[in-house]
Amino acid sequence: MTYCLAIKVDEGLVFASDSRTNAGVDHVSTYSKMHSFSWADNRFFVLLSSGNLATTQAVVKRVKADSEDAGGASLRTVSDMDAAANYLGKISTDIQRIQVERDTAKSNFEATFIFGGQIAGQEPAIFLVYPQGNYIHESAEHPFLQVGETKYGKPILDRAIRPNTQLELAGRCALVSINSTIRSNLTVGPPVELLIFAKDSLNGGRRLALTENDPFYRALSDAWNEGIRHALNGLPPFDWEDELKTAQMVQEAGYPQSMG
Amino acid sequence: MTYCLAIKVDEGLVFASDSRTNAGVDHVSTYSKMHSFSWADNRFFVLLSSGNLATTQAVVKRVKADSEDAGGASLRTVSDMDAAANYLGKISTDIQRIQVERDTAKSNFEATFIFGGQIAGQEPAIFLVYPQGNYIHESAEHPFLQVGETKYGKPILDRAIRPNTQLELAGRCALVSINSTIRSNLTVGPPVELLIFAKDSLNGGRRLALTENDPFYRALSDAWNEGIRHALNGLPPFDWEDELKTAQMVQEAGYPQSMG
Repeated sequence: MTYCLAIKVDEGLVFASDSRTNAGVDHVSTYSKMHSFSWADNRFFVLLSSGNLATTQAVVKRVKADSEDAGGASLRTVSDMDAAANYLGKISTDIQRIQVERDTAKSNFEATFIFGGQIAGQEPAIFLVYPQGNYIHESAEHPFLQVGETKYGKPILDRAIRPNTQLELAGRCALVSINSTIRSNLTVGPPVELLIFAKDSLNGGRRLALTENDPFYRALSDAWNEGIRHALNGLPPFDWEDELKTAQMVQEAGYPQSMG
Repeated sequence: MTYCLAIKVDEGLVFASDSRTNAGVDHVSTYSKMHSFSWADNRFFVLLSSGNLATTQAVVKRVKADSEDAGGASLRTVSDMDAAANYLGKISTDIQRIQVERDTAKSNFEATFIFGGQIAGQEPAIFLVYPQGNYIHESAEHPFLQVGETKYGKPILDRAIRPNTQLELAGRCALVSINSTIRSNLTVGPPVELLIFAKDSLNGGRRLALTENDPFYRALSDAWNEGIRHALNGLPPFDWEDELKTAQMVQEAGYPQSMG
């Protein structure tokens, strides 16, 4: 399995992904699922991949080849973000079709992508590109997109992410979302990759690859555990706890107690 | 869908359940999924149900009828918690079999239960009873059991619940787990039922049914949101944030800045 997410806030974009791939429990491996494509000061794209690893690797290879080719559609030449998402959906379905035609065993070649970025002078955007090649964008009410093992890490995003959330805070929230998923589900694993892209900074964003033992990742995980403990301890008591406490205080003060 | 959970800590047991049932999106309804059976000072049981509503209602009816009947196995007569779980698995599969034999449409009559309680002089226990009638208990490493839409509410349990967790804190943690699930998934809905059973208090436990507008439930939900906000704000900054802050302070102080 996989867990990837992207967040769009007013200040920019956040992308995050785990790195575990598996084909059965005895074929577990680590691959980066985050790919970025940059033309300095002109355009910057990030692709997060989930699904069949052969398909996703072929898509990334094709994106690079098209961009180096002088003619034809490519991320280098698309006129806007929508056209870029559409281009990506097209090459994904093309690559799947080739594999399906070769296949004799009804295998699953599907891949799902989160894709986002910015073209100079335009708004940043994020998309979820389905295996069928069509795609959706985020919305102001739901300013994030997820693929893979999405449920464990959704509550924190639902509670914390709004369009006006500060960019780096959104980045930390993405790390917490992935950290929670890794703790709860074995098929999602480190290193965790994070890319924080400030709007209009068309030079590649800030990218981190965090292993389990990375001091920053550990500090963040420890701080979150401590924060959760504190939040739990700050919840209101049940009414009988107040009564019990009062009863105890009265008892300690030596007053007579009636029994109920 | 459904979300039910039970927690076993040293001080006792916690049971919690949502109340939404549906048979398609145009047949959404509210039913209690929590049933308790008490023989004062002798034994106390709680049953949380998920799955086919006709099956779960028939199981509860059968449990009551057997307990009022003088002869035969029943929750009133079983010798220990294991025998109680086994009895429950038996009547669940019996009831499913009757329905399957009548059925002409390959319908799904399966039901899954969380079952727990205590018999005087014995240890409290919780079980997850599968549709096949077999069952598992919790463990010290994993002192909780969940059924239904379990993923959204699992990270908080993974982080917070240990055998030595204080009983009422475990109860609040169960409410947070359900609250997060309700926020993230439409098929899980209030009222939320909570039952807190202190070990050896064989007189029924403390039971709450919390609607969305219940003042305690709202206070808990608000306090948790505030706690999460605080926890997020307490996470360590990325290294470049420190640099940016330093750069900003230097700039504000009027010192010359080199550009990188």
